[in-house]
Amino acid sequence: MDTIAALRNKRDTRTYLDTAVSSDVLDRVLDAARMAGSAKNVQPVRLVVVTDLETKTALKASGDFAAWIDQAPIIVVVTVRGDAGPRVMFDVGRHAQNLMVAGFAEGLGSCPVTIHHPEVARKVLGIPAEVDPAMIVSLGVPAPGEEPPAMIASPRIPLDDYVAMDRWGR
Amino acid sequence: MDTIAALRNKRDTRTYLDTAVSSDVLDRVLDAARMAGSAKNVQPVRLVVVTDLETKTALKASGDFAAWIDQAPIIVVVTVRGDAGPRVMFDVGRHAQNLMVAGFAEGLGSCPVTIHHPEVARKVLGIPAEVDPAMIVSLGVPAPGEEPPAMIASPRIPLDDYVAMDRWGR
Repeated sequence: MDTIAALRNKRDTRTYLDTAVSSDVLDRVLDAARMAGSAKNVQPVRLVVVTDLETKTALKASGDFAAWIDQAPIIVVVTVRGDAGPRVMFDVGRHAQNLMVAGFAEGLGSCPVTIHHPEVARKVLGIPAEVDPAMIVSLGVPAPGEEPPAMIASPRIPLDDYVAMDRWGR
Repeated sequence: MDTIAALRNKRDTRTYLDTAVSSDVLDRVLDAARMAGSAKNVQPVRLVVVTDLETKTALKASGDFAAWIDQAPIIVVVTVRGDAGPRVMFDVGRHAQNLMVAGFAEGLGSCPVTIHHPEVARKVLGIPAEVDPAMIVSLGVPAPGEEPPAMIASPRIPLDDYVAMDRWGR
């Protein structure tokens, strides 16, 4: 898929088919996340990929709006080293965006899910104290109506409102 | 450019040629950023695009490692509404990553620059109190040696170290 098209057309989707995701596709998606940058190239981000239903179900309690995540074929828990400094959530966002845009290019829908209760994800996945569970990203083949053409669902503000030149408000 | 290739091969680069960036290219890059998602689609992110040399020079004091940014043809200050909640830097990262990957696909290098002194950027750009300057991204045609083939400069950990399956460490 063309890069600009993928970046423009990816929308967050959270209804998926049961269709299995091949390990080739999943590897390409995870690899795109791996290649995202980080401050000083410290690479503090690691992923835990969850497909086990019992584990997905246990992870529902890690977010206030995560009751649906056991329905996603794949749950990716994005973790980050706790000592990685103040820019850490920015770098988590870069990794997650690579993951989601790569997924879109490979025919997968995705959605970020906020972790409000990191202690739950930590316990369920055995994440050590020096690492923080930072964000969940769901992945799967989108259900009909959630595939790309219908993804106009989330409109965006016009470019002129999004961008100012040289000074705020211009 | 192919999406997976762009996501995999983009590296942070901060040495640029004086070559002008056409407004068509810049618009496509800014538009890719605009289309990135945000929590609940609140769209709290706005960009200030700076090409004026005096303004770029004044912005150098906004970061502890930003002394070089006046050398970049284009400086993008990514701002975010202050009331947008705890996930805000994650969403800033999503927008910035779209911007940088789109830039790469259009032949531009880029680099995120941390804002350690937001009050400087706020004053220089006239950013209102309810909006936070969150991150700077530089943009420009990469100097020789910084173009894609040389970007192997920042190695990444292997996929097996980056990803665990179902539980930390597996």
